[in-house]
Amino acid sequence: MPLDFTFTEEQEMLRQAIREWCSKNLTLEKVREMDTKGEIPHDVIKGLADLNLLVMTAREDVGGMNADWVTTVIAAEELGYADISLAVPVFFLVQAGWGFVVDRYASEEVRQDYVARAIRGEGFVGIASTEPGGGSDVAAMKSRAERRGDKWILNGEKTYISGTEEAKAMNGGYFTIVRTEPEKGHRGMTAFFLPINAPGVEVVKRFEDLGRMAISTGGFVMKDVELTDAYVIGEVNKGFYLTMEGFDCARLLVAATCVGAARRALEIGMDYIKQRKAFGRPIGKFEGIQFELADLWTELQATRWLVYRTAWMMDKKYKEGAFSPLEVCQWVSMCKLKAPQLAFRIFERTMIWHGAYGYTKECPLEMGLRGVMSYYIGAEGAQNIQRIIIARELLGKEFIPYR
Amino acid sequence: MPLDFTFTEEQEMLRQAIREWCSKNLTLEKVREMDTKGEIPHDVIKGLADLNLLVMTAREDVGGMNADWVTTVIAAEELGYADISLAVPVFFLVQAGWGFVVDRYASEEVRQDYVARAIRGEGFVGIASTEPGGGSDVAAMKSRAERRGDKWILNGEKTYISGTEEAKAMNGGYFTIVRTEPEKGHRGMTAFFLPINAPGVEVVKRFEDLGRMAISTGGFVMKDVELTDAYVIGEVNKGFYLTMEGFDCARLLVAATCVGAARRALEIGMDYIKQRKAFGRPIGKFEGIQFELADLWTELQATRWLVYRTAWMMDKKYKEGAFSPLEVCQWVSMCKLKAPQLAFRIFERTMIWHGAYGYTKECPLEMGLRGVMSYYIGAEGAQNIQRIIIARELLGKEFIPYR
Amino acid sequence: MPLDFTFTEEQEMLRQAIREWCSKNLTLEKVREMDTKGEIPHDVIKGLADLNLLVMTAREDVGGMNADWVTTVIAAEELGYADISLAVPVFFLVQAGWGFVVDRYASEEVRQDYVARAIRGEGFVGIASTEPGGGSDVAAMKSRAERRGDKWILNGEKTYISGTEEAKAMNGGYFTIVRTEPEKGHRGMTAFFLPINAPGVEVVKRFEDLGRMAISTGGFVMKDVELTDAYVIGEVNKGFYLTMEGFDCARLLVAATCVGAARRALEIGMDYIKQRKAFGRPIGKFEGIQFELADLWTELQATRWLVYRTAWMMDKKYKEGAFSPLEVCQWVSMCKLKAPQLAFRIFERTMIWHGAYGYTKECPLEMGLRGVMSYYIGAEGAQNIQRIIIARELLGKEFIPYR
Amino acid sequence: MPLDFTFTEEQEMLRQAIREWCSKNLTLEKVREMDTKGEIPHDVIKGLADLNLLVMTAREDVGGMNADWVTTVIAAEELGYADISLAVPVFFLVQAGWGFVVDRYASEEVRQDYVARAIRGEGFVGIASTEPGGGSDVAAMKSRAERRGDKWILNGEKTYISGTEEAKAMNGGYFTIVRTEPEKGHRGMTAFFLPINAPGVEVVKRFEDLGRMAISTGGFVMKDVELTDAYVIGEVNKGFYLTMEGFDCARLLVAATCVGAARRALEIGMDYIKQRKAFGRPIGKFEGIQFELADLWTELQATRWLVYRTAWMMDKKYKEGAFSPLEVCQWVSMCKLKAPQLAFRIFERTMIWHGAYGYTKECPLEMGLRGVMSYYIGAEGAQNIQRIIIARELLGKEFIPYR
Repeated sequence: MPLDFTFTEEQEMLRQAIREWCSKNLTLEKVREMDTKGEIPHDVIKGLADLNLLVMTAREDVGGMNADWVTTVIAAEELGYADISLAVPVFFLVQAGWGFVVDRYASEEVRQDYVARAIRGEGFVGIASTEPGGGSDVAAMKSRAERRGDKWILNGEKTYISGTEEAKAMNGGYFTIVRTEPEKGHRGMTAFFLPINAPGVEVVKRFEDLGRMAISTGGFVMKDVELTDAYVIGEVNKGFYLTMEGFDCARLLVAATCVGAARRALEIGMDYIKQRKAFGRPIGKFEGIQFELADLWTELQATRWLVYRTAWMMDKKYKEGAFSPLEVCQWVSMCKLKAPQLAFRIFERTMIWHGAYGYTKECPLEMGLRGVMSYYIGAEGAQNIQRIIIARELLGKEFIPYR
Repeated sequence: MPLDFTFTEEQEMLRQAIREWCSKNLTLEKVREMDTKGEIPHDVIKGLADLNLLVMTAREDVGGMNADWVTTVIAAEELGYADISLAVPVFFLVQAGWGFVVDRYASEEVRQDYVARAIRGEGFVGIASTEPGGGSDVAAMKSRAERRGDKWILNGEKTYISGTEEAKAMNGGYFTIVRTEPEKGHRGMTAFFLPINAPGVEVVKRFEDLGRMAISTGGFVMKDVELTDAYVIGEVNKGFYLTMEGFDCARLLVAATCVGAARRALEIGMDYIKQRKAFGRPIGKFEGIQFELADLWTELQATRWLVYRTAWMMDKKYKEGAFSPLEVCQWVSMCKLKAPQLAFRIFERTMIWHGAYGYTKECPLEMGLRGVMSYYIGAEGAQNIQRIIIARELLGKEFIPYR
Repeated sequence: MPLDFTFTEEQEMLRQAIREWCSKNLTLEKVREMDTKGEIPHDVIKGLADLNLLVMTAREDVGGMNADWVTTVIAAEELGYADISLAVPVFFLVQAGWGFVVDRYASEEVRQDYVARAIRGEGFVGIASTEPGGGSDVAAMKSRAERRGDKWILNGEKTYISGTEEAKAMNGGYFTIVRTEPEKGHRGMTAFFLPINAPGVEVVKRFEDLGRMAISTGGFVMKDVELTDAYVIGEVNKGFYLTMEGFDCARLLVAATCVGAARRALEIGMDYIKQRKAFGRPIGKFEGIQFELADLWTELQATRWLVYRTAWMMDKKYKEGAFSPLEVCQWVSMCKLKAPQLAFRIFERTMIWHGAYGYTKECPLEMGLRGVMSYYIGAEGAQNIQRIIIARELLGKEFIPYR
Repeated sequence: MPLDFTFTEEQEMLRQAIREWCSKNLTLEKVREMDTKGEIPHDVIKGLADLNLLVMTAREDVGGMNADWVTTVIAAEELGYADISLAVPVFFLVQAGWGFVVDRYASEEVRQDYVARAIRGEGFVGIASTEPGGGSDVAAMKSRAERRGDKWILNGEKTYISGTEEAKAMNGGYFTIVRTEPEKGHRGMTAFFLPINAPGVEVVKRFEDLGRMAISTGGFVMKDVELTDAYVIGEVNKGFYLTMEGFDCARLLVAATCVGAARRALEIGMDYIKQRKAFGRPIGKFEGIQFELADLWTELQATRWLVYRTAWMMDKKYKEGAFSPLEVCQWVSMCKLKAPQLAFRIFERTMIWHGAYGYTKECPLEMGLRGVMSYYIGAEGAQNIQRIIIARELLGKEFIPYR
């Protein structure tokens, strides 16, 4: 098969449908309003469900589209393009990424309830991995699940969790990773599906963040939470690997949504520099500005195809077993490393083009700067972790620097 | 005289005094509170006045310290170090810079009232230059003053003006540049001192900005505002040159305050990376983090001495007539070009070191990122204008690109 | 058709064939030798011809492969990988790019002689565009062709021309652009095929360059050179457009070959940092080095797919008329802007990893630094020209800055 | 004492004297000739001696100037400005830096012979630290000196040593660091003055380097070299500290000479962009070029004052005991980290401004690119070592990453 950089007709139609829906229902004015009020309104969630975007990676029997990764990346890109604050994209991609893993490995009980409802916009599936005192370092995790009779008893605390308020309101739950055999290290971790409203779970905190204000970030404590085997995701003690799988899915979509947001920033910037005049001509005619546009546009296109190439690899992995998980993981890390930083830089520089106006909330760009910082700073994985993964595949495991 | 990089004892004492006062009265917690509430409390302004920092560049007869530029830069640096949101530094430096020009060139009437009160923390002296539709391009200015009898009648609109609310509350005023002989271009501009509460002046807007929330930014309209000759600053039709002089003063202080804020960011960052652990050691031990610290620290020290060297030049210019105004202007532009961008980068990267915590309002750094963006984006002069000035002195006037 | 990032079997076989041939016949030792002696030996040219790589874009009737652009890019990438000094890649790509245009638009007389011989490694087809006093600015061109009877009489001077010595030795010629109706500007330019050994052509100079020493760069003077109509390429007064077409072809291959060379540099670098020890471990284990590797590798992969995406566009343009020439031109400019600069940076940084050894001619990397500088500095088009093209397509022709 | 950025009259006169001498005796044409021939001619060395620049840091009784560090930095800067290939600067600074340490700590026997001759241009004092298999990692050093009777017997190999041919020709010698009590680590190292023509010393290699061709780089083997106590520099087992002291001296001068060379590059660049025309105006009028000039000029000025501030610190350390050695060391490392990389970037970008001409040996800049790479790549200390030193002073010794 020769190289082909064409999307399928269905993919183009989906992109078009999202673009159109957003141009009416997720305008920049609406995003500003959401950012100010601090929530995603119900009609937006309903709209996403109607477009079949929520957990679109899940299988058809629970209502999903069984969407491939290229198609899911298209959706992520378009939602980032529309909501540059990234609140809706966070809501979308956490579910498309982690919901995929839940749908793939969880029990029918969980799938038919939680996943199915999330797909209809009446639930939420998130990720709870980080703990107080341990972000990138999974080995420092302290939460535990102990077997008591035929139940699992979970104790511990998770923090910096996206969507805690939304999950509570919609009776959703989390892919939650805890230790089951602590002495076995990462081979003693198990993933559970944790209903946020299960007895013993208490949301203890809502963070005030710099950006993506319309979706909550919080923390919860698990105190003797009882779960049956139906809430184990995949096999016991294999949770670490599922977590890595979920991170790959989510990180790819993170990169895609940053690409979309960055493209919007450049378009907003171009509109402005074509109109705004100084010294008798539109400022876009000055090399000082247009050369920067040319550089940033080039970076964006290169990054965009890096992302689609990776999505294609992921499809090949899942469908044909082509490419090893580690190979795909490396490409995902390249996307996650490059896209959020580039998006941040693009918002920064397009803001600069706008001068004082760009510093105000009348200009939408500042929402984007604040929003993409979330992924640049490390939601779904810090930059240096991506670098370690990329280098590990190039040099070998024995070159992991912290060992 | 040989090179000497030592501050005088008085300068060291002043630095120490500010540092101490801030450590009690302008803590990061206080800054967060100010940022949230959107105002600088009276006790802070009173404290600055008690320290003799307000319009410290003004002469003694109105209560000023007649402070030289090196000393004023020390104050700006320390206030930036304390209030990384830059709200207090904006309040300080606008007055120290533009108040200097007003004190130097305005009538006794203005000096003894407005400048004297500003020094006591009971007034405010600001700058009103930008107009809707024209930031960097001074030639596009439309506001006018016309002679009618022995009065001047001002009409026009100014926007993106720092401190409009504060000026109103404290009955302050603005160094305001308008056209008096429009056909003469920049040789037909005059500077007036415009009391914000003069009849005909209406503050029409308060912007919501990304940062430095504790000081207002607004716009005002002048509608047949009557001013006597006592409100002319300097000579009629020489206002353009006074404006350039004021910009040099303000830009130098902008650079200094960004250096101070950036230093604080690195110190906050260092404290964190020395304590925070991952993979069994403090993250400051990882080259991926400490090498970035080394690079940023180096940049900061280089920038700091660029700023002090420029302050010294400015003192030599005013005291001894050494260095031409254009030469000093070029060095000021180098400071203004480099310091805010570096400070932005330092906040960005130190935030990254903090991970998810750095994204929350529990960590002070995000206030700094938002605050320094104000000067990076162009308050007191856009980056590309600084580049044009620097290159003009190197290549000659005939190389100004927009001509 | 869905996205597909797979090369065809034929393409993979060609890549393999080149890789193998180079591993025997174009080793780094051989490249060093060529670089020192200042010439490409006959056996290398013969080998390229045997592999059917010379002017591989030409049609079959003159012996070409009628290779598509993706395939030609593969060849350029592999030759850059093998000869990081870029001498052989220059020899290859000038001919594959400009030979394509000559083959496409020149008379049978020229094709069957010059193109056919070049394909067999017994001739050379180059580009002569630059003149003394005018590089990027085509409008400043002074060379002329005047009609006298049924002949064209050419006068003028061309400089910084690749392959002048090789062309003379192999009786080759140049795609040469001159004015035919000077008053018509770029609509009065015509392309000629200029045999280097035609009476009146004198090679007046061989430059000593920083790098790619094995291929000559020179200048020639045309003094009343007589050419028949058979030497006109394309239509009279349409030469400007053919030149732009040729530049697109050549620039794409430039980017591809820089990608290949940069990849080799990273591989050389990886081999070194895996073996070289300091402080008790291989230096590749230090984050200070491996994180840079991760960043550069990511950039390289992104750039590589930008290049292949552009090659695919060019094939679509020529085969199906998809994509407008201007659209393709923009993508080519993105490749030309990004790839040589990245390659330079990669050689620079991998040299740094090697320390003092990297500074010596025992380490191959310095040949690459010197070689890729040729394209970074602007052979086949300066960086700023690429930026102008990219911005022109984004903003519109009216935003071209020099007008 | 207030800040003062003025040089003394004597310093200004010295600068002027060097500038004048170089403008006649060390022109760019001469530098090109030296670079091509691969040697520094005798008249240049004689001229440096007549100017009292050779080992100018040595005391008067051996003929030195007892020059302070600010003054020595001036000389280094001016020599870098003149000889951008850095060959003469290397010859100068190795001696001014390491000769200072030798003069300060060696026996009268060594001082009155080797140092005194070096000052007259009839000798050479260099540094021999690096060994095969160990650059940055001093602890990996294998050369040894063993006590036998009242003699020391040295064995081992040193490599990447500057000036081996010059030392041989002028009967000079090296500050050579070897182990005397290997089991004591860096507390068991001793510095010797090793005459290059001592029996048992064999220069085994002359490297072919990328640049600074006019001064040799080589390696030598020590085979049972007998030295008396008079050849011990400082105390036995204290050689490590003297080596660190010498590195600080040399690194400061390295930074200074890179600043000088970079300034020359920008001046050459400015001359060119003021004259060279494209699209009807000098290319210096294009923002794409002049903005880069503004940025690079700003960086250069900031770096220059970082260097002078450090020189001043070093003078304070030696004269008044102000500043601890570690504090000075950190500032020196900041200079060494930043100056060579900036100089490399300035040569790179000014070459780019010149287009194809900049790639030829008719343009002097390529000598500079090749020359400064020597210090960028790590002569006198790798970048990452400087970063470790800078971070160590900021974070504490326990944060040294390789421990």
